[in-house]
Amino acid sequence: MSYRAPVSDIASALKHGAGLQRAIADGLYGDLGEDDIDAVIAEAGRFAENVIAPLNAIGDRYGTPFTDGAVTMPPGWKEAYRAWAAAGWNGIAAPAAWGGQDLPHAVKVACNEIWNSGSMAFIIGPVLTMAAIEALSAHGTEALKETYLPKLVSGEWTGTMQLTEPQAGSDVGALRTKAVPQDDGSYRLTGQKIFITYGEHDLTDNIIHFVLARLPDAAAGTKGISLFLVPKFLVNADGSLGARNDVRAHSIEHKMGIHASPTCTMVYGDKGGAIGFLVGKENAGMVCMFTMMNSARLSVGIGGVGIAERATQAASAYARERKQGRTAGMAADQSVTIIGHVDVRRMLLTMRALTRAARAICYATAIALDRAERGADETARKAGHGRAALLTPVAKAFSTDVGTEVASLGIQVHGGMGYIEETGAAQYYRDARIAQIYEGTNGIQAADLVTRKVPLNGGQTVRRYIDELGTTVGRLRAANDPGFGATASRLGNAVESLGRATQWILKQGGRNADAVLAGATSYLRLFAYAAGGCMLAEEALAAARGANGAASAGDRIGIARFFAENMAVQAGGLEVCVTQSAESVTAATLPDPTV
Amino acid sequence: MSYRAPVSDIASALKHGAGLQRAIADGLYGDLGEDDIDAVIAEAGRFAENVIAPLNAIGDRYGTPFTDGAVTMPPGWKEAYRAWAAAGWNGIAAPAAWGGQDLPHAVKVACNEIWNSGSMAFIIGPVLTMAAIEALSAHGTEALKETYLPKLVSGEWTGTMQLTEPQAGSDVGALRTKAVPQDDGSYRLTGQKIFITYGEHDLTDNIIHFVLARLPDAAAGTKGISLFLVPKFLVNADGSLGARNDVRAHSIEHKMGIHASPTCTMVYGDKGGAIGFLVGKENAGMVCMFTMMNSARLSVGIGGVGIAERATQAASAYARERKQGRTAGMAADQSVTIIGHVDVRRMLLTMRALTRAARAICYATAIALDRAERGADETARKAGHGRAALLTPVAKAFSTDVGTEVASLGIQVHGGMGYIEETGAAQYYRDARIAQIYEGTNGIQAADLVTRKVPLNGGQTVRRYIDELGTTVGRLRAANDPGFGATASRLGNAVESLGRATQWILKQGGRNADAVLAGATSYLRLFAYAAGGCMLAEEALAAARGANGAASAGDRIGIARFFAENMAVQAGGLEVCVTQSAESVTAATLPDPTV
Repeated sequence: MSYRAPVSDIASALKHGAGLQRAIADGLYGDLGEDDIDAVIAEAGRFAENVIAPLNAIGDRYGTPFTDGAVTMPPGWKEAYRAWAAAGWNGIAAPAAWGGQDLPHAVKVACNEIWNSGSMAFIIGPVLTMAAIEALSAHGTEALKETYLPKLVSGEWTGTMQLTEPQAGSDVGALRTKAVPQDDGSYRLTGQKIFITYGEHDLTDNIIHFVLARLPDAAAGTKGISLFLVPKFLVNADGSLGARNDVRAHSIEHKMGIHASPTCTMVYGDKGGAIGFLVGKENAGMVCMFTMMNSARLSVGIGGVGIAERATQAASAYARERKQGRTAGMAADQSVTIIGHVDVRRMLLTMRALTRAARAICYATAIALDRAERGADETARKAGHGRAALLTPVAKAFSTDVGTEVASLGIQVHGGMGYIEETGAAQYYRDARIAQIYEGTNGIQAADLVTRKVPLNGGQTVRRYIDELGTTVGRLRAANDPGFGATASRLGNAVESLGRATQWILKQGGRNADAVLAGATSYLRLFAYAAGGCMLAEEALAAARGANGAASAGDRIGIARFFAENMAVQAGGLEVCVTQSAESVTAATLPDPTV
Repeated sequence: MSYRAPVSDIASALKHGAGLQRAIADGLYGDLGEDDIDAVIAEAGRFAENVIAPLNAIGDRYGTPFTDGAVTMPPGWKEAYRAWAAAGWNGIAAPAAWGGQDLPHAVKVACNEIWNSGSMAFIIGPVLTMAAIEALSAHGTEALKETYLPKLVSGEWTGTMQLTEPQAGSDVGALRTKAVPQDDGSYRLTGQKIFITYGEHDLTDNIIHFVLARLPDAAAGTKGISLFLVPKFLVNADGSLGARNDVRAHSIEHKMGIHASPTCTMVYGDKGGAIGFLVGKENAGMVCMFTMMNSARLSVGIGGVGIAERATQAASAYARERKQGRTAGMAADQSVTIIGHVDVRRMLLTMRALTRAARAICYATAIALDRAERGADETARKAGHGRAALLTPVAKAFSTDVGTEVASLGIQVHGGMGYIEETGAAQYYRDARIAQIYEGTNGIQAADLVTRKVPLNGGQTVRRYIDELGTTVGRLRAANDPGFGATASRLGNAVESLGRATQWILKQGGRNADAVLAGATSYLRLFAYAAGGCMLAEEALAAARGANGAASAGDRIGIARFFAENMAVQAGGLEVCVTQSAESVTAATLPDPTV
């Protein structure tokens, strides 16, 4: 199944669903116009279609054999990675001063979606390098930047992010890796990290590890964590590679999916301590991490969209080709392509509607991040930051839930063939599942949304957002287009449900924390249905006005309507779960089923 | 992770959720009393815990290597299968005349759940043999029965069911395998079958294939299909094995899960034709299949429950052992077991509630099958048949959807460890996914429910069932127990939604077929929420009365309440999907995303 970058869907979501046109009008992107953005995305699409997508099944089949501390990447992956670096994609969002293109989050997120569609296992490495670049740019000394940034930006070297330890997963503050200061200003690290993505590989000559560790006298918890740069090979003063550092991959995990992304256990200090360099201040490691938390979570969220899109394309192609069964009036020896069956239509529409809603939410989050960084004044940047903070957990959790749900529907459309590995549908399903877990599980995202994000600025951030959704409903009512069916009514109800559920959370004012947490996952889904529904409606309204060519209007209106009438319609039930069902969660007994 | 058969949950579901006590009181089971049934289930549980469950991870890892037409089963599987046969489990539901125990569906379904918890890949073979026994008992000649039934019942030989061909999956009528009558009364078969479970293996000396094929002059479609018995090795007059028949496994599939269940492509007639014997009448193959369709679908449905139960146990154990993070007021260096986090509680409650609801629905379907076969008179049997026909698609589709949903939550509770294969959580997720597809995809089940089952007897069958659900709501209201929270109100709404949605379908009277089909999947889920919720409420009411030991009352009431307040509460949205959203499905454009 070949992949085609959905450039017109992406343009519609960016410009009309997520508000790119407004952001451009607000001067957020300087000289960068719609055409430039379209051109970058089209080019990213061609690279994904021709270079990345063909790697995906190969990577799944070969995995990354591990022998004597070395990882062998699958056939063709090294060549593809070199083409990636040579084309300059690695530095797409990196500072121009260090060789990057400094493109905004709005462009990066769209490219990131496309690359994830190509192969999540491939792109996850470069995306972590981008995160490392972000951290080092923001917090590194000039000397560190000069030594490492140009080669990370060019892709000559890759970067890793190392937080997790056996006892410290979601609870980063429990980590124990030690860093002891040396007289020369460097540190010696000892300890073990697990689940380290691309911790070892043979794509590049050097790997730069960004490692959270604890100074000898550090406080317990997250307040005692510092960030260190630990190169696999030390770098000489002239930039050439020096001695091997005291860090090694000890083993790799046997995972359900993303087989070509080596997940390593890393050991520091077998020979007395790995040499590391402090990034940011001592005990300020979490601050450095928070710098890139929103964009890292968005990167994971958009991975869900990327896999959902590819699964949708594969299912759609199969449904147009596979003949089976009959519709009313056909003779016994005739058969239709299965897209002619109503329930297959329903599945394909569900896949498309969920994918597009998640895409628009991710893109809106990216534009909010851009507003936080590029807004004209402090007020605009603060508003952007609040919006980004609010939307990030929804973008991460909803989109990755959608990745799995859509991939599962993709298997179902394929029938028995979907369960056989050769069609690829099963791989999307296995690959997609990880994204609900890492970079903060989706349960943690939901808790973050209800306990930190909804109360932001006394609730003003979320209230203002819900008011905006209300204006979309108003525009739908004013348009009064019969093709939209019950869209206005259903979305109106969903936005009202979201408003009431939000008010209920705000009213608790930090009391009844467990009751609020009990409804967190339902609240996040309710938020996504209201927000995603309104964004699809904005796309449809724009298409009805003739934007992006009138040909797409039927499609966009149909999907907006389908989402409103089949997904957003669940808002009332979700509202009840948030506002009235907490005791059923908190008061239930939970006896051990195995005794 | 070891498995413990949930005998008290099973007893509660059978007796109070599904109505076993009433069935016993109605004299359905003769001398067989509650204690006998408990004893059989306990024994099945011990066998699953000690013999089957330990095979599961081994089977996943080794798979079934295929060389030169032969399949090698994983280490220990042959010994376990022999123990299975020696203990008499293979004949649990087979006629006593042929060496079976003739136990009712109610007992078989509970045992089947337990065995699926042990290992779906293991039990799927024997369950197909049981289906073959059912077909042969009902439709075979005395000669065929005498030759084959004793050894199929004892488990000395296994049986397969062969319907699918490349062009004939859901549409069985499109099959092309040919059967040519011979002068000696036998037939010669030529053709190819795919996706044949346990089509080849080394557990037994012989394999008896039950094959759908077409006579030379047969009509197109399902009316021209006949059923044949085709042994791997021909059987001599004295019962000893004779020549190898002209049938062979050509290859096996590389599947996402159930790796230890060999899925074969079978080739008939390389050397002129496999010798087969007609079962039932010529061109009546589908009638023979329909004999066991309900029980076969129920067998698949209960597989979903079995995996859901095991995934729930594994997640529950992990959540009680894994320490991570803090609850309010704990110091930075402390941590709680993750069951202390509200969202983890919510996930575990969701797993438990969905599993128990699906279990009760499957058991109720089994008791309806028993009523259809063992009812005192024709009226009772007809009512039982109608009830079984109505519930079967719900049991199959809802339970297998639940299998996947619960297994996915099981991964989420495990966090990163859930994505690593060694914990087993990933295997449950991969294994569970097949059950939504085979024995009629869940979309086909939903279509069957709305187009054939709801209209049964002019709608009387479904109306009577909904009235029964209403009496449960009445009992809840009368009990007026504050521990049930909003259970009565939420279930009352769900049952009313189901009533209105049902009425809407009946009112179409076969017109607007596409509109009815558009809401079929939502209707099935609505049905399951109302029915499952009421069954859990009946279990809770019985526990509150002191049945099964008062200790369980808190648990049963808590789960009934959780299900009502978090799942059944979605009924209103689903009703709208059924009755008002059809046009959003049927009228939407569905452009090809790849052009």
